[in-house]
Amino acid sequence: MNAGYMGKVLFVDLTRRKTWTEPLSEAWARRFIGGSGLGARYLVELSDPGVDPLGPENPLIFMNGPWTATPIPLSGRHEVVAKSPLTGIYGEADAGGHWGTALKKAGYDGVIILGASEEPVYLWIHEEGVEIRDASHLWGLDTYVVDETLRAETAKTAVTCAIGPAGENLVKIAAVMHDGRDARPAARCGLGAVMGAKKLKAIVAMGNRRPPIHDRDGLMASIKAAVPEIKRLAESLSKYGTSGRMTTIEALGDLPIRNWVQGAWKEGAERISGQRMAETILKKQYFCGACVIGCGRDVEITQGPYAGVQGAGPEYEALACLGALTVVDDLEALAYATELCNRLGLDVISTGGVIAFAIECAERGLLPAKVDGIELRWGSPEVVLALIKQIAHRQGLGALLAEGVRKASEDIGGLALEFAIHAKGLELPAHDPRAYNSLAVGYATSNRGACHLQGFSYIFERAVTLPELGYPEIQDRFGVEGKGRFVAVTQDLMCLFDSLKTCKFILFGGIKPTHLLAWFNLVNGWGWDLDRFMEAGERIFNLKRLYNVACGISRKDDTIAPRILTQRRGEGGAATNLPPFGEILSQYYEHRGWSPEGIPTEETVRRLGLEEEAGKLRAKAVMKV
Amino acid sequence: MNAGYMGKVLFVDLTRRKTWTEPLSEAWARRFIGGSGLGARYLVELSDPGVDPLGPENPLIFMNGPWTATPIPLSGRHEVVAKSPLTGIYGEADAGGHWGTALKKAGYDGVIILGASEEPVYLWIHEEGVEIRDASHLWGLDTYVVDETLRAETAKTAVTCAIGPAGENLVKIAAVMHDGRDARPAARCGLGAVMGAKKLKAIVAMGNRRPPIHDRDGLMASIKAAVPEIKRLAESLSKYGTSGRMTTIEALGDLPIRNWVQGAWKEGAERISGQRMAETILKKQYFCGACVIGCGRDVEITQGPYAGVQGAGPEYEALACLGALTVVDDLEALAYATELCNRLGLDVISTGGVIAFAIECAERGLLPAKVDGIELRWGSPEVVLALIKQIAHRQGLGALLAEGVRKASEDIGGLALEFAIHAKGLELPAHDPRAYNSLAVGYATSNRGACHLQGFSYIFERAVTLPELGYPEIQDRFGVEGKGRFVAVTQDLMCLFDSLKTCKFILFGGIKPTHLLAWFNLVNGWGWDLDRFMEAGERIFNLKRLYNVACGISRKDDTIAPRILTQRRGEGGAATNLPPFGEILSQYYEHRGWSPEGIPTEETVRRLGLEEEAGKLRAKAVMKV
Repeated sequence: MNAGYMGKVLFVDLTRRKTWTEPLSEAWARRFIGGSGLGARYLVELSDPGVDPLGPENPLIFMNGPWTATPIPLSGRHEVVAKSPLTGIYGEADAGGHWGTALKKAGYDGVIILGASEEPVYLWIHEEGVEIRDASHLWGLDTYVVDETLRAETAKTAVTCAIGPAGENLVKIAAVMHDGRDARPAARCGLGAVMGAKKLKAIVAMGNRRPPIHDRDGLMASIKAAVPEIKRLAESLSKYGTSGRMTTIEALGDLPIRNWVQGAWKEGAERISGQRMAETILKKQYFCGACVIGCGRDVEITQGPYAGVQGAGPEYEALACLGALTVVDDLEALAYATELCNRLGLDVISTGGVIAFAIECAERGLLPAKVDGIELRWGSPEVVLALIKQIAHRQGLGALLAEGVRKASEDIGGLALEFAIHAKGLELPAHDPRAYNSLAVGYATSNRGACHLQGFSYIFERAVTLPELGYPEIQDRFGVEGKGRFVAVTQDLMCLFDSLKTCKFILFGGIKPTHLLAWFNLVNGWGWDLDRFMEAGERIFNLKRLYNVACGISRKDDTIAPRILTQRRGEGGAATNLPPFGEILSQYYEHRGWSPEGIPTEETVRRLGLEEEAGKLRAKAVMKV
Repeated sequence: MNAGYMGKVLFVDLTRRKTWTEPLSEAWARRFIGGSGLGARYLVELSDPGVDPLGPENPLIFMNGPWTATPIPLSGRHEVVAKSPLTGIYGEADAGGHWGTALKKAGYDGVIILGASEEPVYLWIHEEGVEIRDASHLWGLDTYVVDETLRAETAKTAVTCAIGPAGENLVKIAAVMHDGRDARPAARCGLGAVMGAKKLKAIVAMGNRRPPIHDRDGLMASIKAAVPEIKRLAESLSKYGTSGRMTTIEALGDLPIRNWVQGAWKEGAERISGQRMAETILKKQYFCGACVIGCGRDVEITQGPYAGVQGAGPEYEALACLGALTVVDDLEALAYATELCNRLGLDVISTGGVIAFAIECAERGLLPAKVDGIELRWGSPEVVLALIKQIAHRQGLGALLAEGVRKASEDIGGLALEFAIHAKGLELPAHDPRAYNSLAVGYATSNRGACHLQGFSYIFERAVTLPELGYPEIQDRFGVEGKGRFVAVTQDLMCLFDSLKTCKFILFGGIKPTHLLAWFNLVNGWGWDLDRFMEAGERIFNLKRLYNVACGISRKDDTIAPRILTQRRGEGGAATNLPPFGEILSQYYEHRGWSPEGIPTEETVRRLGLEEEAGKLRAKAVMKV
């Protein structure tokens, strides 16, 4: 097998309680790299696009990158892939922490879960093999407790991946959690529910192996040269975490407030900023595997109503979605809300989104005004906390909200359809397309539904350049010309990141695509050039699109909630802009080589060498094209 | 009662076989004028927004204008109003000809049909009253034959309104036809099916009464002064009819071709132009009641495969929708296709739309390649003619297409959803929003679904100014600034036209809103100013919107087929433009005084004096807001 990889994928069939390994296909690795790309390729291989996401036919795929467990900075991430029960299309979510590294060190590039168990089980993966173990005693427990219990049962230095009650209850916005109290979620697309449907409570991994490296000396020298600059440039991220830019983001009109209606919230943003966190509840930094920045926040609250909170603190997205979207500016309450989501196993983005949706419904008389005796209103930490619990347990209003905003709004009907803020069923993350034109088409075409990270385009409209890819200057965030190509190129680049499984924040550390490419070649000796590297990103993006097309996705679905396209923020740093959606989408399709209906053309499929996959998907498609 | 009106509305309850008259409410007349406005007000009064459009609870309302049967030029139109079985929301369609005038001269401002008959009937309305007569012998006959038969049964100078087999068969794109062989359709929204569901085959009207006029001498003098200029300015319309601008429209990129995909079609447009018609099959002009222009085409074909065609010839919309949309450039075949639609009682716009849709479906393998042994392909008169017959009789593929493109595309599913070109379920007429930015939001917000006449905005972006309303210059067709207000103002103005029941083509004759206002005051002596006049238009527009909101309409529905918003024409006079939809819609809502979700605010309702109607609709609403 190639350097960088372990060359082995672990298969677990929970229906038949069988495990085996298969060699990782070198051909696939060279075409889809790892992580998200390889995960998507396995998904295409192992299931039909028409499967029930919560049925045993939906494989749950955990996949490492081609350099996981090497010293490459910020490389401690892994991908989780399955058909999403929330969106009904391609689903993926990635996580930092140490679990992916532990899996690789146990000897595996990935683990693929097939079938479903009848009783709760967990997996214990180590260098000697894998055990399917009973998890009856863990069912119902939160992920922090599960982590403690399982490390006591297996090894103190083992790392756990687990679902909380939300995943068990098939909540469609349930996350796959990792690293216990240092909680690192693979949050999006409801993959926790897929794990729950398989009655798989946890996967514990540990090992000491390392992948071979083609040119270790060269790699180490290159890394050594890069790290000080990464640290220097990303210092603010290191110091204040992802919410260090909270007030800047608010000032730019990029922070969504009050379910995307309010334009500005200066004092609120200050109160939940990373700076305020550093002055108050921050205990220490947290570093994922191989990280040299440490943007993770480790917090502790020792007094007051939220005393006892300890461990992973709220990220920017948690503060924005659980806080700004609901107009809650109580930092300690938000730290507790985040811990609740982590323990119960919920995606903080989608959870904040459905809660804000519910409050707006209540405000407009479309939902009962009270829940558990608490009046549903903006700015109430009690409401947020109560609804988090209800959602995870599908109690009361939680049964409706556990389905996500799209389904909830369809069930309520009427005007509720107007403020369910999602794209393809995935709740919008906390960056506003009215503040960055690229995000509108970016969210609309992101293969897993609304996602800021699948293009990460806004950072190139604000802080980072990409000279090697034709963007030597910071892009105009309100620009139109060439924006379609720009969206596509950044998505291709992010497909590389998601497949390499390196944290995208390394871009804030001055690392450019050519740096990544250099490391790539040093690790595996393949000698690729930048074109080939970027083409792999494009191939991976198109593979996922082909999967979605087979699920029935086309242009009609490439859109986002009308509120974001038609309603101005009215005040703040993006008071009047509305993204010119049709124009940019049209540019985007043209650049991608897709038909006007959003289908990759035969020529595009051929150019990217996806004929085999396209044929397979076409044969099994829900929608014939 | 006020001058201009007869002061009486005829009610016919077909279930109970009862007829009676009710005085026309003066208060309503002063708030909603007539035609479309009064029709909408009666609809709100007489039924719930939730009724089955084809059930007996859906009233079918025929309403004249406040100066029908006066000598005001181009005033021979009337409105037909009901909930639409095609769109499920507010439906209206108007027609020229002489039927409305005959109804007024029989003594009625309108006739309202309630309930439904068990057996086919027709109405015979004259000055002495009304008779409900058996129509068993007419059922299944085409409208030309029905007209001849009924005028033989009643009076040679009587005028008929009738449905053809399409309406009988509850085809959702069936028209209400008038004037027999001089066919004038109230075409849109499938109101022919409403008439068919009531088993009402026809309404024959005749009379010699005239409405009182407040200042007859003043009115006559004003008309006399205006007519020569109208004739002079509209000469080309008089000479070549509505298709006289066919080649100009094609050159502007405004003509939809090949189901809205092809950008240019110069030779085709020439072959189906009004000029070509004048050189070939044109027999004489046709004038609706009180018309001084005579854009109507009376054609005759005496030899070849279409020999026998005689009477109303194809208008621009028929040529464009039955022809350009399907790439058929055989003028004689299109004249025959038009006569078929007239006889069978079909809307030529929607019929052309569904046929083009079907051909594209077949091209992409989503529908069988043959129908009645004829290969479904572009440019085939045989296909167009065969499908017209199939649709009217709901035979073969016609059963699917008879439901309109929205429903047909939903039934076929998948990619078919991408090229069902409609707004709110109504097939787009033959003017392209990519050629006129105002049309995108105009179609999207038109109360009856996609309609060029409910705003007629593009004529002010091309040929006509509106200095009195703030548009002293021709507007930039690709402009954005102020376009939202512009769309709203033109819609309000057209609500006046639709309520006055005067043909909008009078604008090509140099008539401005103040001319209409002067005539209005001369007829009824109300002494309104322009603000009050325009406010009535705005009130009428908002009344219909409130009805639609009660049906469940909001911002999410204010859109048009994505092809038109995202796919460039690629060549021709509008090769690259895509209308900036969100921006203009946002401006539009702001100007209208609607919430960002597209709901008229309480303040707007109050300002327009629509509290009573809003309250009534809210109480009966399908969607509570």
